[in-house]
Amino acid sequence: MSRVNVQELTDKVRRAFLGVGVSEEIADTMAEVLVDTEMKGVFTHGIIRVPNYVRCIREGGIKPTADLDILSETPTMAHVSGHGGLGIPIAKAAMKIAIKKAKECGIGIVSVKASHHLGAVGYYANMAAEEGLIGMTMSNGNPMLAPTGSCEKRLGNNPFAYATPAGKYGTVLYDIAISATSDMKIIDMNKKGLTLPDGWLINSCGEPTNNPADYLAGGVLIPFGGYKGYGLALMVELLTACLGCSGMTHEVSAWNRTPKEDGGNVGHFLMAIDPKAMTGEDGFANRAEELIDQMKASKLANGATEILYPGEKEKIKKAECLRTGFVEVDDDSLAALDALIKE
Amino acid sequence: MSRVNVQELTDKVRRAFLGVGVSEEIADTMAEVLVDTEMKGVFTHGIIRVPNYVRCIREGGIKPTADLDILSETPTMAHVSGHGGLGIPIAKAAMKIAIKKAKECGIGIVSVKASHHLGAVGYYANMAAEEGLIGMTMSNGNPMLAPTGSCEKRLGNNPFAYATPAGKYGTVLYDIAISATSDMKIIDMNKKGLTLPDGWLINSCGEPTNNPADYLAGGVLIPFGGYKGYGLALMVELLTACLGCSGMTHEVSAWNRTPKEDGGNVGHFLMAIDPKAMTGEDGFANRAEELIDQMKASKLANGATEILYPGEKEKIKKAECLRTGFVEVDDDSLAALDALIKE
Repeated sequence: MSRVNVQELTDKVRRAFLGVGVSEEIADTMAEVLVDTEMKGVFTHGIIRVPNYVRCIREGGIKPTADLDILSETPTMAHVSGHGGLGIPIAKAAMKIAIKKAKECGIGIVSVKASHHLGAVGYYANMAAEEGLIGMTMSNGNPMLAPTGSCEKRLGNNPFAYATPAGKYGTVLYDIAISATSDMKIIDMNKKGLTLPDGWLINSCGEPTNNPADYLAGGVLIPFGGYKGYGLALMVELLTACLGCSGMTHEVSAWNRTPKEDGGNVGHFLMAIDPKAMTGEDGFANRAEELIDQMKASKLANGATEILYPGEKEKIKKAECLRTGFVEVDDDSLAALDALIKE
Repeated sequence: MSRVNVQELTDKVRRAFLGVGVSEEIADTMAEVLVDTEMKGVFTHGIIRVPNYVRCIREGGIKPTADLDILSETPTMAHVSGHGGLGIPIAKAAMKIAIKKAKECGIGIVSVKASHHLGAVGYYANMAAEEGLIGMTMSNGNPMLAPTGSCEKRLGNNPFAYATPAGKYGTVLYDIAISATSDMKIIDMNKKGLTLPDGWLINSCGEPTNNPADYLAGGVLIPFGGYKGYGLALMVELLTACLGCSGMTHEVSAWNRTPKEDGGNVGHFLMAIDPKAMTGEDGFANRAEELIDQMKASKLANGATEILYPGEKEKIKKAECLRTGFVEVDDDSLAALDALIKE
């Protein structure tokens, strides 16, 4: 890991995208969202992703100049196409529409089709929370998980996020993927000779296993909580592919592999709710603060030092980066970024 | 278990509620929802609940004549109070409002406060799905789960449900509680001398345990998927107690224990979305059907005979009851119901 100046890193990401024909505005958005994610310590969705986004643009799988297009619209809803552009600016623009509608009508929902990988899905939910609204965002993805009863990759790792204002805590930001754990974690545990907990992996025949080596022999990730997570992955697919007419399961291409002419064909669902519109008063954030107070006041388990709320760990990391002006970045990711800029 | 005529059972439940001063209409709703749940095989939320609802009415903790009252309303939202009445008719009336708003505005959200236990939360989501809409329902509850890092019961088992139309499959109906498993299951496994899987229970010190006997010694249920489930339980609390100003965590009373003057102080969140309003066309159910087709076509895991969609198992059971006219009911539950009618 290297310590990098936040402003310098932002500028590097910006230049990497400007180099492949992306507009100043979109390059700014890419840099802002990816560096924000990196500062939160969510390395899997930060700088490491730049080379593949850039490669997809070069190979024609992402259109660098695509604009978000409203296909149909009501006061509460918009159905939009990303026309195969970069997922991050598309999702950000879509959330802005949802926020505007929520401020006008109490609720706004935007369904996005023909988009691409949108980075950390929680970023967009948090946009709503920072404006005093409740935000909820989801995206489908290429098949990575086995439905309950199957041993085949048929469902995306369909990320789901919500965020709300929470008084002195700023915002609560929950952002998860549906797999019980990531493939990277399993590969790492295999290297270290560790045993997996129950419920993380099935082998290539679909049998539960605690051996991480089974992953390399055709094992498949499963949803967290078994059928409970399977149903959540389906919910995301229903609210993206089915509601917004994006690609469904295998029609969605992997963000880091073969670029497709029509982009990733990814679907997003973005919702904002104005709590003031529900009750006519402004007390939501105070009640959310009280809820978090209660969590933090709970009796600690042996070995635990603190009870966190969703997004707290990431917020602490980001605040430290902003305080010092520096962020830790993986050396390989940084070298790849530098190489892109030279090209 | 006894085989009971569905119509006779419905009539018995009706009479049990009429006996404690409930209106014909509310008694009909109680019978309809509880027998529906029983036919689906969800015994924990069916007939077994009648004695406690009735006891709460007798002891003043549920007001038998309470009407749902709209506190504030916009074209897309309603904030309502159940005034301490029975949760089931309150939630049903609230979902009707959400459905009406969704048909008019594309989306409708109803927040309910001062309600009581609402039975199976999925019933109300399915009401929306049966009208071609996407339904989502949640309810908070009295504290039963430990937040991640704690060994104290601080969060309700906050049920969450969604339902959508799905073409030839009728509706998809997902209905879960947030605990990894139920206390009844753990007690049963203890009796049988079985070992729990990882991630189901912590002991009274908050340490993970696989020994079901630890539950009886002060162990606490934990959310499914660890922190991922913890965040979902918080989401339900945020969308009920915080959005709708119902009781929060410990302010919510246990449905089966002490009745309170203000009812259970339970909060519900009910949302309906009209997919036609999003795209202007009617294809949602067909796409949902295609999604389920894909799940069912997935390669089977060893030992699995079929891949189910959420709610399928329950739908098969209910269809069998409707075909034969009979439903299996636990003998104790039936005896308790008969005793109530005699009183």
